Amino acid sequence: MHAIGVDIGGTKIAVGVVDEAGRILAQVRRETVADDVADIDRVIAEACTELAKEHEVGAIGLAAAGFVSPDRRSVLFAPNIAWREYPLAQRIEDLLEPDVPVVVENDANAAGWAEFRFGAAREATDMLMLTVGTGLGGAIVVDRELVRGKWGVAAEVGHMRVVPGGHYCGCGHEGCWEQYASGTALVRDARQAAIAQPARAQRLVELADGGPATITGPCVTQAAQEGDELAVELLSNLGRWIGEGSASVAALLDPELIVIGGGVGAAGDLLLSPVRKAYEAQLSALGHRPVASIELAQHGNEAGIIGAADLARR
Amino acid sequence: MHAIGVDIGGTKIAVGVVDEAGRILAQVRRETVADDVADIDRVIAEACTELAKEHEVGAIGLAAAGFVSPDRRSVLFAPNIAWREYPLAQRIEDLLEPDVPVVVENDANAAGWAEFRFGAAREATDMLMLTVGTGLGGAIVVDRELVRGKWGVAAEVGHMRVVPGGHYCGCGHEGCWEQYASGTALVRDARQAAIAQPARAQRLVELADGGPATITGPCVTQAAQEGDELAVELLSNLGRWIGEGSASVAALLDPELIVIGGGVGAAGDLLLSPVRKAYEAQLSALGHRPVASIELAQHGNEAGIIGAADLARR
Amino acid sequence: MHAIGVDIGGTKIAVGVVDEAGRILAQVRRETVADDVADIDRVIAEACTELAKEHEVGAIGLAAAGFVSPDRRSVLFAPNIAWREYPLAQRIEDLLEPDVPVVVENDANAAGWAEFRFGAAREATDMLMLTVGTGLGGAIVVDRELVRGKWGVAAEVGHMRVVPGGHYCGCGHEGCWEQYASGTALVRDARQAAIAQPARAQRLVELADGGPATITGPCVTQAAQEGDELAVELLSNLGRWIGEGSASVAALLDPELIVIGGGVGAAGDLLLSPVRKAYEAQLSALGHRPVASIELAQHGNEAGIIGAADLARR
Amino acid sequence: MHAIGVDIGGTKIAVGVVDEAGRILAQVRRETVADDVADIDRVIAEACTELAKEHEVGAIGLAAAGFVSPDRRSVLFAPNIAWREYPLAQRIEDLLEPDVPVVVENDANAAGWAEFRFGAAREATDMLMLTVGTGLGGAIVVDRELVRGKWGVAAEVGHMRVVPGGHYCGCGHEGCWEQYASGTALVRDARQAAIAQPARAQRLVELADGGPATITGPCVTQAAQEGDELAVELLSNLGRWIGEGSASVAALLDPELIVIGGGVGAAGDLLLSPVRKAYEAQLSALGHRPVASIELAQHGNEAGIIGAADLARR
Repeated sequence: MHAIGVDIGGTKIAVGVVDEAGRILAQVRRETVADDVADIDRVIAEACTELAKEHEVGAIGLAAAGFVSPDRRSVLFAPNIAWREYPLAQRIEDLLEPDVPVVVENDANAAGWAEFRFGAAREATDMLMLTVGTGLGGAIVVDRELVRGKWGVAAEVGHMRVVPGGHYCGCGHEGCWEQYASGTALVRDARQAAIAQPARAQRLVELADGGPATITGPCVTQAAQEGDELAVELLSNLGRWIGEGSASVAALLDPELIVIGGGVGAAGDLLLSPVRKAYEAQLSALGHRPVASIELAQHGNEAGIIGAADLARR
Repeated sequence: MHAIGVDIGGTKIAVGVVDEAGRILAQVRRETVADDVADIDRVIAEACTELAKEHEVGAIGLAAAGFVSPDRRSVLFAPNIAWREYPLAQRIEDLLEPDVPVVVENDANAAGWAEFRFGAAREATDMLMLTVGTGLGGAIVVDRELVRGKWGVAAEVGHMRVVPGGHYCGCGHEGCWEQYASGTALVRDARQAAIAQPARAQRLVELADGGPATITGPCVTQAAQEGDELAVELLSNLGRWIGEGSASVAALLDPELIVIGGGVGAAGDLLLSPVRKAYEAQLSALGHRPVASIELAQHGNEAGIIGAADLARR
Repeated sequence: MHAIGVDIGGTKIAVGVVDEAGRILAQVRRETVADDVADIDRVIAEACTELAKEHEVGAIGLAAAGFVSPDRRSVLFAPNIAWREYPLAQRIEDLLEPDVPVVVENDANAAGWAEFRFGAAREATDMLMLTVGTGLGGAIVVDRELVRGKWGVAAEVGHMRVVPGGHYCGCGHEGCWEQYASGTALVRDARQAAIAQPARAQRLVELADGGPATITGPCVTQAAQEGDELAVELLSNLGRWIGEGSASVAALLDPELIVIGGGVGAAGDLLLSPVRKAYEAQLSALGHRPVASIELAQHGNEAGIIGAADLARR
Repeated sequence: MHAIGVDIGGTKIAVGVVDEAGRILAQVRRETVADDVADIDRVIAEACTELAKEHEVGAIGLAAAGFVSPDRRSVLFAPNIAWREYPLAQRIEDLLEPDVPVVVENDANAAGWAEFRFGAAREATDMLMLTVGTGLGGAIVVDRELVRGKWGVAAEVGHMRVVPGGHYCGCGHEGCWEQYASGTALVRDARQAAIAQPARAQRLVELADGGPATITGPCVTQAAQEGDELAVELLSNLGRWIGEGSASVAALLDPELIVIGGGVGAAGDLLLSPVRKAYEAQLSALGHRPVASIELAQHGNEAGIIGAADLARR
């Protein structure tokens, strides 16, 4: 059975028809206005209706950044779109032409599920997926099942606290993992280093071409690939936090595989090596247990579509 | 179907027949020698054989402190008994007179399962159990299933890191949660306070009756119940660490109920109130999600027997 | 001998004639343009010249936020004014009508010296002054002498690190004391609490009258004075960081008195009590040494003028 | 004028005649019983009397581990000898045959003074001395004067807190610098690594020749000199803590020179390089100030004698 997956971003929506092997057969993209909730509904429904004319579709899955109700029908809260206890599945069903069931999934869960079913973790039974981007998103698979939690809010891994009294987080707390293990953290650390250690940051500032405040993640990756000592340290430090936090998760969940997604994956082994080293150094009971593999995600930006579609079929 | 549960400690073994409602119908206790593995096998088998003569028994579950293989047949590693990849289930089956299947379970998992099936969490679907004793043990139930992990090593919650560069742990790492949220931590903090703030620690030292180094957990609880300011602070601090760490676990697992077991439960609300307050203060997305309940365990020392027996039936 | 003290702010300059008892006999205020260095010189020189016509003046002291050379002639670096290795004393002397020697002092040092000579610490020999404002400034007196350090940069107490991996600081590092012990920290913590614990922050948000992002320090103080639990906690937390950091300084310097200046002093005992409690709880070797007193500063905004004038006489 | 310096250890006493250039002209050593205070007095007095027969001596300085009164006459408290408000100088004067004035100094202060007057810091005016041994001792020189503090208890640098909630310290607190920057910390970290990362610790355990618990500081140094990766990391980590803590001290005191004494100096650049790197990386306002030099101490075990003698002359 084919299914449609929809990846709903703040200003863009990507919609694809996905087959049972996780392949995207057709795809359309639409722009939206983040604070116009009804417009988002309409754009989604039209795109789905359009694709459903060309493809026989048995289910629709919507991937949304936010808290999703356990019955997979509503978004309880979203940080970037004005959904509050919003019955998103029902609204889309009401607007659709074909009579196809709709479910909502958290976007990080959808992406993780794509990796679990058709990507880096397709042979695994217990997986931790980390999406290292603006924030740190996650998905957890235990014994082949996605962990959604009692109220649908599980796998908010970025808000595990890793430093008491640590960096402020947008969630109102201090020391959240995503403040140390995200692209945002990498950039902020690079900019701080350019202030605190200006001589060492020369190459970074050059690449940024506009002073410390314009350093970006790709600048750091490029400088590190050139061998710049500070840039290598910054990626290594990011990797250390990813690996050490993962070891804490492993103390709880004992996964066999940790999948790293998000833009920082472009750094390749400059990131993965320190992740693996830190994971192993920090893993409880090393020597009395196997060590989980740590691999890059395979589906990039399309993971949300693929995972949402596949979850809709279940 | 009745089942036998066996709780294997370092020097004592408790064996009970458990019915399907989680009641213990009969129980025997035996002493063992911790480093004589064959003796432990023999003592367990004899006790089970003896009880099986009086009761019809369909399965035997062994609760052991250590890493248990995912097939529930072997102990991979135990901190206090000389088991290393030890085929414990097979050994007991070989020695038993009745032909009854035997499984091995981690002791904290067994205790948690008892609470989940017949205790504080019997109405829950997603639970975190914390056993706050010498160390910090745990059990995790997700959607009605015990989380064992890929290699049977999940729910080692005490080794989630809560303070980078924090207290040394016996596992070789620093800052493990059990170094802040255990009876051992409480006692150590009390003794440290007696050195650092001698005037405030007078009542504690009096109760200990032998100087700072003899302060025990019950001393702290008693002093706190009398209203001693330092003792109340120490319990409050312990509670804070339990609650804050639980909030990190909740970011991953979104449980509906957190069950607190172990000796520190004797402190009642002097402990539970700060646990709940810290959990709520530290919980991600408070206001956009329900808050898990936090309750004391109901089965005390017998939880291992009850849980192991019930798990053996499954 | 009378002396003139000048307190140079980013946009305002206050100039006063100070007698040997630390009294201000006359005072004028002027506005300046922060990035027009020559204008600042001119405004200072004119104000001093004017006051020197009415009062016999033997020396002029300039209090400036920034690093001051050990010979007290130049500002090496200033965060808010465009001074870089700027020969400030010479420039003012060149523009002055009377022939009076000029010295430059760091503004926090000047304020601390005013408290030491004529204020809260006038009977002390060893003092730590903390100015808890936008940042955390300091002054250190050891055996009756101001500690300037080898290169004039001592007493930058706000940049002692108190939390590894802690809050980002404008200096480019993490975990600086001023990120925990300043008015800015208080406000930021209050705003974070309004996000993380909205129900508890109701009174604070009411007083702010414009949502979490408009909460100010005076809101917190007022709410705390009304008995609001969260506000009391926030001040208590600020006090704890002031006290605990002071205990670290005391391990190095063993002061007899710690003077707290800056706007947060308005909170009175709501702040001072937790400062004292935390200082004592964290002080090394309590019971084997006297405990320093902790008192509020007495000179408020005029401390810079008074201290700069008095230091110019020495 | 020649003076005698006495270095009083727990079980050994070293006594030397020191000339004005800091050279030891004669030296004797004696054994003592740590808890027999009168015996210690007698042994010191006899050794001094004996040396004073051969050398004209104008003053005697006693270096003692403990808190020394500001008048340099008494030991207020000592961790290893049963002195409590003990009038040590008077007792020795009473027992001496020659009529020579006696003063008491803290042993770390004495060692630091030796380096300041005749060793690594002889050209400096502002110095921080760190003695990295069993604990972390220190001495502070500001503008050519030893900082003793109001009550004689300054320069207890090892008890500056560097990690909130960090390692327990014998002083009763958590996270004291000496728990991260001492020989004891190095050994403990090495032993922990041997538990947590057994494969990487093979060479260390081999050198220890008796399992993880027998690893010593010299094992780590030797392994590091052979290029062992873990050992190099351990020294680097020790160096990082020394350097980062020193940067915090520099925020307060702006020293021109930091002198590293104690047994760990044997590691040479394997230790010094990471110290310097971390100091610079963590130093506030790098780029706007000179960076202090960091050098090894020059006087080894004799620093206490030399410094105490010289301080007695002042």
